[in-house]
Amino acid sequence: MNMDATEKIIALERTAMAAWLNGDPSPFLELYSEDFTYFDPSVERRLDGWDKVKVLYEGMRGKLKTDRFEMVNPVVQQDGSMAVLSYNLDIYSGDTLWKENCTEVYRLVGDGEWKIVHSHFSPTMVKMG
Amino acid sequence: MNMDATEKIIALERTAMAAWLNGDPSPFLELYSEDFTYFDPSVERRLDGWDKVKVLYEGMRGKLKTDRFEMVNPVVQQDGSMAVLSYNLDIYSGDTLWKENCTEVYRLVGDGEWKIVHSHFSPTMVKMG
Repeated sequence: MNMDATEKIIALERTAMAAWLNGDPSPFLELYSEDFTYFDPSVERRLDGWDKVKVLYEGMRGKLKTDRFEMVNPVVQQDGSMAVLSYNLDIYSGDTLWKENCTEVYRLVGDGEWKIVHSHFSPTMVKMG
Repeated sequence: MNMDATEKIIALERTAMAAWLNGDPSPFLELYSEDFTYFDPSVERRLDGWDKVKVLYEGMRGKLKTDRFEMVNPVVQQDGSMAVLSYNLDIYSGDTLWKENCTEVYRLVGDGEWKIVHSHFSPTMVKMG
């Protein structure tokens, strides 16, 4: 396990998620590779390519507002130039707690820079307060 | 893109899925690494480690029976010794069609042998016939 890569990837993810959960998709869009593939529970088929995901994300810009989130037990499994980060995501907003399963596949694109090549988010359960 | 790896990974997945959807978890269990991590929509938190997933899967042995399935548009994104396979899975059983998003992260463990280090399955929508 490369601790530098683990810490770097978790920090990138945390920063992008904090922005995303407050209506700003830009940090995630900057992290996504050109060949990015994306699974979203609200979309029937996988979205392929940065351009398509940009359209989806720009449609959400400014619309999301949450109180706080927790990345639960993030784990990075790395081998060479690829790594998969997985974690449970708890999102708190008012009286609502959303729980999601999150998978992010990162690829080293040179000079220590990591890009996300594949994302998969899915809800586990929703508890209303 | 390494076409050999792409074809090999898709073939491994197809064989394991065919067995799994007819009640036999053994091929998937043989593919999973010791450090395997697993997201299932029915489990609130990620399952970590081969032993825990074996317990879950053995509890399903013989219980699943489906008519046929389709791996829709499988894509393998590989860099060096890791690769992520993603596809939409359509499962047909009687009048029911299940649709899932599937992510499988594979790692080369030597001598051309691939193991799965992370799986994430989630339902997209369910249509009743």
